[in-house]
Amino acid sequence: MTITQLKNSYRNKTLSPRTLMEQIAARIGKHADNPIWIYLLSSEELEPYLARLEASDPAELPLYGIPFAIKDNIDLQGVPTTAACPDYSYTPEASAYVVQVLIEAGAIPIGKTNLDQFATGLVGTRSPYGACKNSINPDYISGGSSSGSAVSVALGMAAFSLGTDTAGSGRVPAAFNNLVGLKPSKGVLSTSGVVPACRTLDCVSIFAHSSEDVQRVFDVAASFDVEDPYSRKMPALHKNAPSFFSFAVPAKEQLKFFGDKEAEALYYKAVETFERMGGRAVETDFTPLFEAADLLYFGPWVSERYIAVKEMLENKPESFIDVTRTIISSGKSKSAEEYFNAEYKLKAYKRQSERVMQGVDFALTPTTGTIYTIDEVNADPLQLNTNLGYYTNFMNLLDFCAFAVPAGFRENGLPFGVTLFAEAFEESKLLQLGERYVKMASNV
Amino acid sequence: MTITQLKNSYRNKTLSPRTLMEQIAARIGKHADNPIWIYLLSSEELEPYLARLEASDPAELPLYGIPFAIKDNIDLQGVPTTAACPDYSYTPEASAYVVQVLIEAGAIPIGKTNLDQFATGLVGTRSPYGACKNSINPDYISGGSSSGSAVSVALGMAAFSLGTDTAGSGRVPAAFNNLVGLKPSKGVLSTSGVVPACRTLDCVSIFAHSSEDVQRVFDVAASFDVEDPYSRKMPALHKNAPSFFSFAVPAKEQLKFFGDKEAEALYYKAVETFERMGGRAVETDFTPLFEAADLLYFGPWVSERYIAVKEMLENKPESFIDVTRTIISSGKSKSAEEYFNAEYKLKAYKRQSERVMQGVDFALTPTTGTIYTIDEVNADPLQLNTNLGYYTNFMNLLDFCAFAVPAGFRENGLPFGVTLFAEAFEESKLLQLGERYVKMASNV
Repeated sequence: MTITQLKNSYRNKTLSPRTLMEQIAARIGKHADNPIWIYLLSSEELEPYLARLEASDPAELPLYGIPFAIKDNIDLQGVPTTAACPDYSYTPEASAYVVQVLIEAGAIPIGKTNLDQFATGLVGTRSPYGACKNSINPDYISGGSSSGSAVSVALGMAAFSLGTDTAGSGRVPAAFNNLVGLKPSKGVLSTSGVVPACRTLDCVSIFAHSSEDVQRVFDVAASFDVEDPYSRKMPALHKNAPSFFSFAVPAKEQLKFFGDKEAEALYYKAVETFERMGGRAVETDFTPLFEAADLLYFGPWVSERYIAVKEMLENKPESFIDVTRTIISSGKSKSAEEYFNAEYKLKAYKRQSERVMQGVDFALTPTTGTIYTIDEVNADPLQLNTNLGYYTNFMNLLDFCAFAVPAGFRENGLPFGVTLFAEAFEESKLLQLGERYVKMASNV
Repeated sequence: MTITQLKNSYRNKTLSPRTLMEQIAARIGKHADNPIWIYLLSSEELEPYLARLEASDPAELPLYGIPFAIKDNIDLQGVPTTAACPDYSYTPEASAYVVQVLIEAGAIPIGKTNLDQFATGLVGTRSPYGACKNSINPDYISGGSSSGSAVSVALGMAAFSLGTDTAGSGRVPAAFNNLVGLKPSKGVLSTSGVVPACRTLDCVSIFAHSSEDVQRVFDVAASFDVEDPYSRKMPALHKNAPSFFSFAVPAKEQLKFFGDKEAEALYYKAVETFERMGGRAVETDFTPLFEAADLLYFGPWVSERYIAVKEMLENKPESFIDVTRTIISSGKSKSAEEYFNAEYKLKAYKRQSERVMQGVDFALTPTTGTIYTIDEVNADPLQLNTNLGYYTNFMNLLDFCAFAVPAGFRENGLPFGVTLFAEAFEESKLLQLGERYVKMASNV
């Protein structure tokens, strides 16, 4: 189910939003054993949205009748927000800014999706609602933290979905479910009405089946929010990606696949495909990026997660699942001295990263080096999670935007993905190049 | 002694740099009782600079033979940097980036000037080298922390000088010595080779007698430094200030003069003069600015001062003067939680401050509400210092640039000053409007 298909069907009058909702309900019913949803809108709750659409001109609403899923750390008016922590639950009176602009553009919210509790994790297993299963092989993790948002789109329950992405949560599940996932530049999508993880870094992200669909959603969602101090205006930029381009790839010894030979081969194949498209791969030392990533994992930004849930952590620590409580609690003891020392380092890494990106149109890495089963992650929840963030953790600290795209399949049918990233506000370039890549790769 | 005068004299060959150095030495000798200088270059140390100029074409060096003073927390090759703390002293092998570009442009370093120890203070009294005396009335403070840099220019020992300005140190001494003082946008002047106070906020500042002179120095000094992670490129901006303009002034009840009626009258006179120039004063609620200022005073940024001198503070605390040690020590106990909570507030104040500046070309405040004698400050060193920062503390936190200009005299001959400020990178506009103001005011 893509936005393009739905728009055609609506134009040809072969489908109505009401009929689509019935089809989606049926699909959702088939996957009741997979804890994709924390909350699904009832027919009664969907009715106002449908009634409004039936009174509207499809041509005037860019997302007319497009169903979307919402990660359950993003507010939807009148239904609970849990952040995958039932004790944290509250029912917001207003939708998050970005949800509201999508609804105003005609999109239909289907429900709230499962996630790693408080968006802390890249696995999709850290939820009291159950471990979200991979859409292709249920023994495997869905990826997280935006687990349900990715799986719901992958299984045709929504045409797109909103996730959040602080350290990889909008890209890892894209890679694991054969989707595209856009982590926009910080601040371009408002975070008003989003449960904070690290407020200075949090991004709302978009999952879909194609670059074209992401662009459609992004064009609506990227709306400056005066009420969000972290909101940033998208500057007017030249929109056409170059025909011939350069892209940075990490030095060979900096690539980690954690023994996943198939992933390694798929990555190199993706590099070759970009070269066949007119790209020139420039092997580059990515050290400053990986060093910045270490700052996120071991540095003071975890204090932001602590601040976000401090009261509950102090008063009702049993509300958290163990691994989440352990991680977030570590934010309590960080000092301002640690913060500033990390900030100084980060500023130097940022300057160095500008040189990494110098003269290239984007950088290309695996989205993750490998994938794990749910059992594997349960047996070693911290280290395997860390492994999955190797290529994703530095992105927001260094103020990049990133676009995760599918890049083929392993023998067992599990997908692999690569990520294009660039300096802030280069979303359109990444989306165009990602689209060309997917077309080129599928023509092989 | 202005740059304009010196350039004319050099052009007419009525003066040589060597003769000027003799004149300056004589002037310096007359004020030996005022601890303006921590280090003065000897004739031998000046010789290479003079020899180089004598082998150069004056027309090719924009600052040919212009003498300047350097605050002693900014490195000059081969002479000690003390930051007004003898135990901290080191002799750098290279000049600070900004000093180097000025020397390359023909400027002659005269010496290193006294300051409030570690640039912590706005008074000019917090130095083991003695309290710097006001250039007009020696019973009064010079202002600080860039005390000697201001007084040396005021007394004709240098045509311009470099200060630093984290919380007002480049503006307060300008106001107290009837000078102009530019606090550039953060990062526009490199801080490589500058002893950090708050690294994320520190600016190198410029004192001179006129806007024209500041512009000349700024054009040379504003040079991107790839080695300084905090360096920012000056964007190409339209350079002409408008003939008719609007400027924000604080709501009346937000103005504080600490009982100084003359200062109050001089401020309102300055507002009137700007109106006569073609300006429209817009009374505005400055609350977010003053709230941001409180963050600096009471918030986590003092941890940066602690980091900068941690080793000495732990191992040799007697190296500090008492008030400085007390202030800087408080940076040890701040938490990352405090930092991030302050950062969230600051981000909101920044967004609100954008509304304060909306539709106006700049904002106008007193530079300080009043001035104090050295004895008064010694009797109450913390509160009076705080009073002096009321209009200056928020500037770097909110990413403004600021230009302090003279605005008349009290009956006792002591000067008053006002500050124009605007969003980052608006230096040229402020310099032009400041120049027009000074001309208009002197024509009355």
